[in-house]
Amino acid sequence: MITKEDISKDFQDKIKAIDGGICAVSNLKTAGVRDGKYGVSLILSPDSDVAGVFTSNKVTAAPVDYTKRIIEGGKISAIVANSGNANCFTGDLGVLDCENTVKTTSKLLNINKDEIATASTGVIGRKMPMDIITKLINKASQRLENSQDASIDAAKAIMTTDTVYKESAVEVTLENGNIVKIGGICKGTGMIAPNMGTMLCFIATDAKTDQKTLKKILIKSVDDSFNMVVVDGDESTNDTVLLFANGKSNNSVINTNNNNNTNNINNINNDDNIDKNFQEGLNILCKDLAKQMAKDGEGASKFLEVEVSGAKTKYDAQIVARSVVKSSLVKTAVFGGDPNWGRIVMAIGYSSASMDPNNVTVAISSENDLVYLVLDGEVLAFEGTDNLKIAEELMKNKEIKISIDLNKGKNNAVAYGCDLTYDYVKINAEYTT
Amino acid sequence: MITKEDISKDFQDKIKAIDGGICAVSNLKTAGVRDGKYGVSLILSPDSDVAGVFTSNKVTAAPVDYTKRIIEGGKISAIVANSGNANCFTGDLGVLDCENTVKTTSKLLNINKDEIATASTGVIGRKMPMDIITKLINKASQRLENSQDASIDAAKAIMTTDTVYKESAVEVTLENGNIVKIGGICKGTGMIAPNMGTMLCFIATDAKTDQKTLKKILIKSVDDSFNMVVVDGDESTNDTVLLFANGKSNNSVINTNNNNNTNNINNINNDDNIDKNFQEGLNILCKDLAKQMAKDGEGASKFLEVEVSGAKTKYDAQIVARSVVKSSLVKTAVFGGDPNWGRIVMAIGYSSASMDPNNVTVAISSENDLVYLVLDGEVLAFEGTDNLKIAEELMKNKEIKISIDLNKGKNNAVAYGCDLTYDYVKINAEYTT
Repeated sequence: MITKEDISKDFQDKIKAIDGGICAVSNLKTAGVRDGKYGVSLILSPDSDVAGVFTSNKVTAAPVDYTKRIIEGGKISAIVANSGNANCFTGDLGVLDCENTVKTTSKLLNINKDEIATASTGVIGRKMPMDIITKLINKASQRLENSQDASIDAAKAIMTTDTVYKESAVEVTLENGNIVKIGGICKGTGMIAPNMGTMLCFIATDAKTDQKTLKKILIKSVDDSFNMVVVDGDESTNDTVLLFANGKSNNSVINTNNNNNTNNINNINNDDNIDKNFQEGLNILCKDLAKQMAKDGEGASKFLEVEVSGAKTKYDAQIVARSVVKSSLVKTAVFGGDPNWGRIVMAIGYSSASMDPNNVTVAISSENDLVYLVLDGEVLAFEGTDNLKIAEELMKNKEIKISIDLNKGKNNAVAYGCDLTYDYVKINAEYTT
Repeated sequence: MITKEDISKDFQDKIKAIDGGICAVSNLKTAGVRDGKYGVSLILSPDSDVAGVFTSNKVTAAPVDYTKRIIEGGKISAIVANSGNANCFTGDLGVLDCENTVKTTSKLLNINKDEIATASTGVIGRKMPMDIITKLINKASQRLENSQDASIDAAKAIMTTDTVYKESAVEVTLENGNIVKIGGICKGTGMIAPNMGTMLCFIATDAKTDQKTLKKILIKSVDDSFNMVVVDGDESTNDTVLLFANGKSNNSVINTNNNNNTNNINNINNDDNIDKNFQEGLNILCKDLAKQMAKDGEGASKFLEVEVSGAKTKYDAQIVARSVVKSSLVKTAVFGGDPNWGRIVMAIGYSSASMDPNNVTVAISSENDLVYLVLDGEVLAFEGTDNLKIAEELMKNKEIKISIDLNKGKNNAVAYGCDLTYDYVKINAEYTT
């Protein structure tokens, strides 16, 4: 859940967390149904502008290729997503199954098939169980509604090894005072294929916009949220994030007031014209979903946030944050409750970011307590010190933040992850696909 | 141990595995002593040309900086190495401790301190226990000898979480028929800091050479061996590989017979003039030590070799091999005995190498049996097939090889690793530095 601390002061009167998940957005209906390990979610949002971000893996599932092509048209009216089978490495049959999934949805919802996006998550290299999937689409199509429960059902139907459903919603007061809503559902866990894994995320808004603008806004938000989640460092063949806007609020995310030369059509799509409150609202929602994924990482017992400041470049900040959150040695130390600054410093050192060991600062915080382990290159938490004792106490908490100041510049980044536990090994070693 | 299969046909009458470890090399004495978690190894090899390869981590231990500087002189006569303390992130005191370690050795062995290299492995950020280290250097200096036992003692004294000592030696018949020996000791595990980790490797030869040539030969060998070992993907602050040649055999590794224009001094150091048998002998020795490290990876229950062929470039072959051997999902599948080609294909896909899913081939082999999981993009090992049954049987073995053909070119690479087990998590979570 988004808390007040997640919203910076400048935006606290502009953005607020609301209930409803993806159904917080009006003119949208959804449903989710399951049959054992298989599930289908339908989302109906007529005539929506759409933008997407997909896995960069060279091995891509049939629905990834399909949806990339579909959204080139700029508009969708529905999404059909299934769990239990990734429809990846399934050859020509997989492509056909993907098309048939969409055709079935098209008939049932009476929507042109070119306006339907699709996504899958689950086991790689198995034939889609089309009889089950078709039945589930049928069932879901009869349950479509705009309600909190429907959002939860849809979030649940795309779960694989996830242990909790994930949804989030915000209400944004635009710069001109008008109000729009953004709501989303997702399944974890990360960049990052867990066993049956993949991240799927569907975010709706009733704001008015166009594909080009949506894409800009989405990429910015994804870069600071989903791209900063690391569970095990593997990257799925099916990762899909879709942002779609049905315009129902009639409020545009393009803020023409910011533009002194409103007649210049070329300026309309400049970043300067994108409503800052909307962008921030989406950022907060994506970070909330990203954190939910990290907390529910496979086998995770603790949530780990790594905050980097003082980096020479934004890229440096990001690679340091990801390097630390991804390090198996840091992750096992977090599991073991060990404030092992040596492993943290080592992971900073091999990230390839510009850094000077003599100037680095490392602190651990949890539940509003903070303690320095290393301050400007000097170790403060060695044996016998209060700092070490306090750090050891903090490490017992379920949510731990590592703060790193590189003292090299003014750039920041935050990455989200979890510990590496016996259960991670158990889930991934004992489960046979 | 090096077996006949490790030596390609062209070299089987030129290179043979021999006993003696680093003491297979004449005019070399060594000793190793321990006191609980601390150990000291001394190697005495007067007036040796030397080349080194070190960690690329930006956080480096004092002895790494020290030894880099020392070997700029081109010659060393001794190495003093300790385990139990990495002397890293120890500030000015660490530098002083490093100098004092060398000074003590210098006095005891009556060797100029500028001819002594040093290396450390162990916990980061703790003051060196100089009283213990000094006592151990003293003790070791009285036990120096050239014997199989001395090599084993030296290999044992640098162990940290290693469970077995690691040494290897070969005898090489040079192209001109003369014979030289190469012997080495190392501790694991990889690039790759295990808990108290680091890889240290000291390789001696009685061949005659110079620093520039040694460096070329060493980099070539390291690239295909130590740089292809992945245990957990973390990189230590202390990794050090030293190759030194005392010239005692009086046989040069520069093969002047290959050079039609022997008067041209500029050609002397060309790669063409480096004795091919010597290079191959060192390659085989380094690969043998690399495999020993992978087999002894923290918590490892199985050894994993990933062989890539058909890559567009050598770099592509290397990143694919490392990507697969490093994947947490592949590693847990190996632990679980699951021939999960989907995870293998996924790890190939995100390596960024040039590949086409429709043309990739994946096979698993063990103990001379081989079975195809995917052949030219077609899955052969699905449920109910003999291929899957055979693969599941093969996965029960302790040593597993994954062979990947990208069908994109003619380049090959092999990476070495191990499975990800409950014990890896245990070792790294329950051990508090």
